[in-house]
Amino acid sequence: MPTTTVENEKSLNEECGIFGIWNDQKAAELTFYGLHALQHRGQEGAGIVAKQADGRLWQERGLGLLSEVFSDPRRMLNLTGEAAIGHVRYATAGNHGIENIQPFMVNFSDMQIALAHNGNITNAQTLKQELEDEGAIFQSSSDTEILLHLIRRSKAPTFDEKLKEALLRLRGGFAFILLTPNAMYAALDPHGFRPFVIGRLPEAGGYVVASETAALETVRAEFLQDVQPGELIRFDNAGMHLSKYTEQTTLNIDAMEYVYFARPDSNIYGVNVHRARKRMGEAIATEQPVDADMVVGVPNSSLSAAMGYAEKAQLPNEMGLVKNQYIARSFIEPTQERRERAVRMKLSAVPAIVAGQRVILVDDSIVRGTTSKYIIKMLRDAGASEVHVRIASPAFKYPSFYGVDMQTTDELMAAHYSKDEMCDIIGADSLEFLSVEGLVTSIDLPYQGAGNGLTTAYFDGHYPSPVYDYQDSLAELAAANIVTFDPEP
Amino acid sequence: MPTTTVENEKSLNEECGIFGIWNDQKAAELTFYGLHALQHRGQEGAGIVAKQADGRLWQERGLGLLSEVFSDPRRMLNLTGEAAIGHVRYATAGNHGIENIQPFMVNFSDMQIALAHNGNITNAQTLKQELEDEGAIFQSSSDTEILLHLIRRSKAPTFDEKLKEALLRLRGGFAFILLTPNAMYAALDPHGFRPFVIGRLPEAGGYVVASETAALETVRAEFLQDVQPGELIRFDNAGMHLSKYTEQTTLNIDAMEYVYFARPDSNIYGVNVHRARKRMGEAIATEQPVDADMVVGVPNSSLSAAMGYAEKAQLPNEMGLVKNQYIARSFIEPTQERRERAVRMKLSAVPAIVAGQRVILVDDSIVRGTTSKYIIKMLRDAGASEVHVRIASPAFKYPSFYGVDMQTTDELMAAHYSKDEMCDIIGADSLEFLSVEGLVTSIDLPYQGAGNGLTTAYFDGHYPSPVYDYQDSLAELAAANIVTFDPEP
Amino acid sequence: MPTTTVENEKSLNEECGIFGIWNDQKAAELTFYGLHALQHRGQEGAGIVAKQADGRLWQERGLGLLSEVFSDPRRMLNLTGEAAIGHVRYATAGNHGIENIQPFMVNFSDMQIALAHNGNITNAQTLKQELEDEGAIFQSSSDTEILLHLIRRSKAPTFDEKLKEALLRLRGGFAFILLTPNAMYAALDPHGFRPFVIGRLPEAGGYVVASETAALETVRAEFLQDVQPGELIRFDNAGMHLSKYTEQTTLNIDAMEYVYFARPDSNIYGVNVHRARKRMGEAIATEQPVDADMVVGVPNSSLSAAMGYAEKAQLPNEMGLVKNQYIARSFIEPTQERRERAVRMKLSAVPAIVAGQRVILVDDSIVRGTTSKYIIKMLRDAGASEVHVRIASPAFKYPSFYGVDMQTTDELMAAHYSKDEMCDIIGADSLEFLSVEGLVTSIDLPYQGAGNGLTTAYFDGHYPSPVYDYQDSLAELAAANIVTFDPEP
Amino acid sequence: MPTTTVENEKSLNEECGIFGIWNDQKAAELTFYGLHALQHRGQEGAGIVAKQADGRLWQERGLGLLSEVFSDPRRMLNLTGEAAIGHVRYATAGNHGIENIQPFMVNFSDMQIALAHNGNITNAQTLKQELEDEGAIFQSSSDTEILLHLIRRSKAPTFDEKLKEALLRLRGGFAFILLTPNAMYAALDPHGFRPFVIGRLPEAGGYVVASETAALETVRAEFLQDVQPGELIRFDNAGMHLSKYTEQTTLNIDAMEYVYFARPDSNIYGVNVHRARKRMGEAIATEQPVDADMVVGVPNSSLSAAMGYAEKAQLPNEMGLVKNQYIARSFIEPTQERRERAVRMKLSAVPAIVAGQRVILVDDSIVRGTTSKYIIKMLRDAGASEVHVRIASPAFKYPSFYGVDMQTTDELMAAHYSKDEMCDIIGADSLEFLSVEGLVTSIDLPYQGAGNGLTTAYFDGHYPSPVYDYQDSLAELAAANIVTFDPEP
Repeated sequence: MPTTTVENEKSLNEECGIFGIWNDQKAAELTFYGLHALQHRGQEGAGIVAKQADGRLWQERGLGLLSEVFSDPRRMLNLTGEAAIGHVRYATAGNHGIENIQPFMVNFSDMQIALAHNGNITNAQTLKQELEDEGAIFQSSSDTEILLHLIRRSKAPTFDEKLKEALLRLRGGFAFILLTPNAMYAALDPHGFRPFVIGRLPEAGGYVVASETAALETVRAEFLQDVQPGELIRFDNAGMHLSKYTEQTTLNIDAMEYVYFARPDSNIYGVNVHRARKRMGEAIATEQPVDADMVVGVPNSSLSAAMGYAEKAQLPNEMGLVKNQYIARSFIEPTQERRERAVRMKLSAVPAIVAGQRVILVDDSIVRGTTSKYIIKMLRDAGASEVHVRIASPAFKYPSFYGVDMQTTDELMAAHYSKDEMCDIIGADSLEFLSVEGLVTSIDLPYQGAGNGLTTAYFDGHYPSPVYDYQDSLAELAAANIVTFDPEP
Repeated sequence: MPTTTVENEKSLNEECGIFGIWNDQKAAELTFYGLHALQHRGQEGAGIVAKQADGRLWQERGLGLLSEVFSDPRRMLNLTGEAAIGHVRYATAGNHGIENIQPFMVNFSDMQIALAHNGNITNAQTLKQELEDEGAIFQSSSDTEILLHLIRRSKAPTFDEKLKEALLRLRGGFAFILLTPNAMYAALDPHGFRPFVIGRLPEAGGYVVASETAALETVRAEFLQDVQPGELIRFDNAGMHLSKYTEQTTLNIDAMEYVYFARPDSNIYGVNVHRARKRMGEAIATEQPVDADMVVGVPNSSLSAAMGYAEKAQLPNEMGLVKNQYIARSFIEPTQERRERAVRMKLSAVPAIVAGQRVILVDDSIVRGTTSKYIIKMLRDAGASEVHVRIASPAFKYPSFYGVDMQTTDELMAAHYSKDEMCDIIGADSLEFLSVEGLVTSIDLPYQGAGNGLTTAYFDGHYPSPVYDYQDSLAELAAANIVTFDPEP
Repeated sequence: MPTTTVENEKSLNEECGIFGIWNDQKAAELTFYGLHALQHRGQEGAGIVAKQADGRLWQERGLGLLSEVFSDPRRMLNLTGEAAIGHVRYATAGNHGIENIQPFMVNFSDMQIALAHNGNITNAQTLKQELEDEGAIFQSSSDTEILLHLIRRSKAPTFDEKLKEALLRLRGGFAFILLTPNAMYAALDPHGFRPFVIGRLPEAGGYVVASETAALETVRAEFLQDVQPGELIRFDNAGMHLSKYTEQTTLNIDAMEYVYFARPDSNIYGVNVHRARKRMGEAIATEQPVDADMVVGVPNSSLSAAMGYAEKAQLPNEMGLVKNQYIARSFIEPTQERRERAVRMKLSAVPAIVAGQRVILVDDSIVRGTTSKYIIKMLRDAGASEVHVRIASPAFKYPSFYGVDMQTTDELMAAHYSKDEMCDIIGADSLEFLSVEGLVTSIDLPYQGAGNGLTTAYFDGHYPSPVYDYQDSLAELAAANIVTFDPEP
Repeated sequence: MPTTTVENEKSLNEECGIFGIWNDQKAAELTFYGLHALQHRGQEGAGIVAKQADGRLWQERGLGLLSEVFSDPRRMLNLTGEAAIGHVRYATAGNHGIENIQPFMVNFSDMQIALAHNGNITNAQTLKQELEDEGAIFQSSSDTEILLHLIRRSKAPTFDEKLKEALLRLRGGFAFILLTPNAMYAALDPHGFRPFVIGRLPEAGGYVVASETAALETVRAEFLQDVQPGELIRFDNAGMHLSKYTEQTTLNIDAMEYVYFARPDSNIYGVNVHRARKRMGEAIATEQPVDADMVVGVPNSSLSAAMGYAEKAQLPNEMGLVKNQYIARSFIEPTQERRERAVRMKLSAVPAIVAGQRVILVDDSIVRGTTSKYIIKMLRDAGASEVHVRIASPAFKYPSFYGVDMQTTDELMAAHYSKDEMCDIIGADSLEFLSVEGLVTSIDLPYQGAGNGLTTAYFDGHYPSPVYDYQDSLAELAAANIVTFDPEP
């Protein structure tokens, strides 16, 4: 049983982090360290599959944080061999069971395959229906199994060709790692919605794939390249083999990776996340100045933006909120009081700093608005005379379908209230958001195509691909041209 | 992690116990009690799936004893609703992972199905190959998933008909419980290789299915009937619906259920197991008398036979061996010393009783012979002057393929050594086995067909059906007419 | 958290089992096996203290069964060195905390001492008051700490003399094992109320002390002798040193050890427990015959007596009740239903055996009577036409103060009801008890002193010593000469 | 077993955090939250004792983080009642057993007492010897029990007077919370070495005592006052009663509380810790400027000082190091590689920020220097062209005896190497420390007495009191007047 499942601050959840390693004697142990560096991408379950010396795969999976799943050292001792892949998961609503914890492991006519996935397949329901009509059985409620069934049904002559054929059927966002007795594969969707990188270990020359560069650093792997949209990479005993399963690609990395999900020390397509966030803070300071005494960032995700804001506004950047570095669960029943308690167990306002001060509270985003409300209340309880909220990203009005658990607008505060109403509800003295242009300029991807390499659909309703099974949920907005969709390339 | 996985005394493992309940407010709790009564049929893993009020199935599964899997009370609290099925598993070689713990739960186009299985499908490899050729994916290494794939691929118009069609494809021994949002099903193979019974709860009228009648007693259910070979029973809100999916049936219940597997308080096809064992003891006393001072049975499985032997031989039945009622694991590394330690942690010889005595040691069976060796050593260390071993079943020479983990003769002592050699190896003063006739007469099933309702293939090599995928392993013996096979009815 | 704390069948609890080993490389591991053999003497907590190579003591203690306390293998790895002592505890009312789990470990001016105790000090309150008046502090609510304080306060010149002086202050029943960096000690009270034995390991010549001989067998130690009343034995690097701290001794071993507590394979002062129980069964058969069809013993504790009854009465001894060999906890809230559920999870009646039969139910004792009631109900539900209860010990009317958790008569059914009333309450057709003479003759200790070497106070109110702090609770009965007390020798 | 015991970054350990609450219905739950806010003060064990409705105390204690100790929700359910005290502990060398986890709970003539302690008694060995000579027994190896024995031995007429008498015997640093069935007490040593504060709950008016104000905030208690040196405060049903057990007091709060131990959001004697640290950063920037491109603070403890340095030096404060917010243990055996792995699991350098840059690395202190070495290595691996280390406190040359686990100079790098040697060893381009004057001025306590209210012995060897049992360890330094001691006031 997981002991430390915690309330997520924003109800905005990355669906996972993935990590794989090929050709290292400590494959499973390094996978543990790599997943530890990716723990922020998923905290409700974790698993590792290792290829043992005899070629058999062995899995250890469980609910809870990585350190809980592997608290019994025997579980790590079970994971021998020189290749391993792992996954950390943030469960989505209704999908909390152990059956959804990855990597998945299946048997294909005596060949075992393990699979770890980060993303969301937008034509999953359609494919699932088709596959079920053909007799497929799904054990999990996740989309991830679909790839396995597509491979299984492919008539292509080799495994690699089956895999390519299967990948071409998928729509939406996906970064996959597959492990077979013979090779490890990494594949990214044609739009590059999710971050995915390759590294190389210094000594024996093993290869590493991971959701973020921060995980490469942890295992001391050298960064080789970002996996490119549409790329399928095979790692085997002959080394690394790059190829593309499609040439119809664009780059549309999810802007929220820069805003909120990724670690500040990660680089995505050459852009450092901390630097991007700092520029977002600078940009909102320029766009929405306000007379105040200090800047306070919400730790930890908004500290970079707060730095940028304070430098640009030439105001002191103060530690007006402190985060508890330990994680624990409250004992309160699930009520509103529980949510407030959860915020108070994680964050404290510092009266000695904010009392009598006009505070600019810099946050990276507002999703439901409840956390913001409690933070502002804490700052006022601590004596702040004014609290001006500056959000270092645009207002979050539209759902995402490419790998983040926010597929309706039901809980999106900005989808239901005007900026002024939001300001009232959260109890701020003023509330302003960064413009979409400000965001794009702050990230400043070196990519010339449409969208400047980004997906900003959350903010502007512009989806870089059709959303397939979800199209109906946006039908009214699409009819009114409020949201728009690019065709597949 | 299971804490008390223990060495099995005989390396002769029933593959599982199954239990299901339909229409009772405490369905999952009663399933726990029912499985507790069946724990002797499988100790390496346990699981329960319950149908919640909203029609969704929820599973809790884990490695270890039932009490370990459910040691966190939150796991039971997750299992709400008025129907539940459960499983206790004894893992077979190479199949120890959590992925093999049942009940399995899968999704069929929005219908969830849970499945618990006791038995062994003799054409599993053939069907699996065929299914995989058609694109099926297997997540576990067990045979149980095959039924689900067969149902999924059936073209029959209703679920019940699909299920019947699927059952008709299977060969070998199987007792299945299926749970869907609408009904619970119980199905038995056409030979009735495994025990399977139905009961009714006194108050609200719920139905219970279980591997043994002892599990009915535990939940205070009234015995209704043995599930008959070839029967498929549906329990739904309209009650119980009996039907047969085939009329081509015989009765060939595995004789080892009477000899060793089943609880003494269970009845199988009207024959009480304790009484049958007692008669086996009487029969071997008659067939193989020996001059001695006392009878000592190996607790607990051989106590009934020892009673019968002692009564027939008019010798005192003495408690020369005592069993520790608590279970614990040794800390020794897996060596021969570990096996001896395991025996010593479970059994003690009583010097005050056996010193200077000529002992008739009654045991139900000899499989590998190592346990016998240690027990005889313990009795001699305790001062026994003679140890005459009387086995209350015939010599165990041939494998079983209908649901017991003994599918080769590799570890069968009687397949490799003569009776005299065995006597030497285990260190006994004499060794005798019950005759097959003695066994059949002792069980005395009220059934007139071939084999008198029993499978005695272990002892006489007569298999009441072809063994399909295993045929090759018996080819030489079959060629020499040492083993024989009845055709399917 | 212990997962399997179970309802005790009789609410008659031995307070513990103790085990110690001196001079063996696997001291802690053997202590684990020894305690496993003594688990029946206490199931609510367990602990081991080992003397590490550097002379420091290390303790591992916890609530629950031994296998639960040591489920994490790291706990055993912490226990290195060549001497260790251990304890299994049955907590008494109000004393459930971890602070009461033994062995206790304290520091005396840089000398550490660990202590394990089985028994009850009858002048504990008086001594505790006196010690507290002098400034002593007690951390547990058990009596065991008293010995440590008495040693600490002694003015005697050596540790051994301090220990002797301290032992002389204690009254009541006690068997102690002490471990210091230099030696292990075993001490028994002057009446020998509790069993306590010494053994020797075959190879390196290490010594073992244990509550019962069964624990010697488990570690393959050779029995040397029973610890004698008033004996203090020191084990050190020079070997074993026997001595007496007092010559004022009698032998009054608790008769309930033979009746119920001890394992049947243990010998106490030369008498095998199984044999004694079998003779009790023979005696009650002779004293209280009844016309019936079969004898059924309550497993496991009454099986020996049932054997004796059946042999004497020349009736079949049938397995009319079957015990589940696995332990699990019910999920029911603490109500009467829970107690019934607990009985049903442990025992089953066998309809095939008892239906239509006149059953003689042989039990070793009746304490509260509730378990008897449920067992009789189960037998009648299973079809028994008559149930005649024969108790192979006298009626249990008076409390014990020498080491058993039954220090008032409040829950003693026989203290409040006549035999006929008891028969009605438990629902039997007849109820009879063994006479005290029958009991004494059955045990047949080779001891010529008063009481024939036994304490039978439970049955006849004759206490072989004053009961000190408890005297008031028996004042009325003493005034009426219903209970009597021998003076200290 | 604790799963996440982690390498401490500095091997400089506060010995604990304490928290108590009187008169609140959720006493134990609030104590959990309060301890969670103090978890940084001790991570190797935690415990809570609650006064139940019947006046009995109940304890739950364990090894590991608070969230691990209370991972089984039943442990919290055991802790009922309206008063509770708790403790988080950082075990010192050789004292890792469960017996040292506080609060301690003892029995005084039917009165139970629980005790939680933060500090170190400098005359503990002397008192312990004296108490043992009088017959006292110590169960733990901690000093904390001494207070209980002194109370127990006091001849004063009331408990409060006994407690005062006992407190007067102690020397060194101590903050105590005691809980009895009638009252809760808080006591601080006469020098105020450790922080200790009182708060009041808003609603029912319960009282809270805690090591730091941050814990008051977490439970929404209003700050009332710092406990003053020499103060003994009683909380009972009549409210709060302030008193002094001695008037011979000074204020000498440990300067390391401001430098490293306390949370930045805590205030100690009116000085906010974050503000003090920021001023330390400013002071070292003024004292030791260096030409560079950016300031990087070691997260989290040095972020405040880095802010101060950057503002004063007018350099960008960059996030060149990122801390993983999750805690996990490495699987490596205890070697140097393990220490490096531990640093890498906690911290990452950000190449995108530091590559090619001249970095001023601001850290709060250097103790052993190994962590600094690995951090500098990481920065250089990430491309930093220069790394100038600025320590925002003076060089740490002398041990502490007032409550921090650093009682010898053995591991103090600055005690054995010159500044230049240290610079070489850690691999920095330059290394400078804050002056003692700079430290004192930065903290700027509003206290006029000797030492300005601080203990700075670590840095200047000036001890504000004799160090009693530890005097010998400093004898040479004292003889050479390198360290000095004030007499007791």
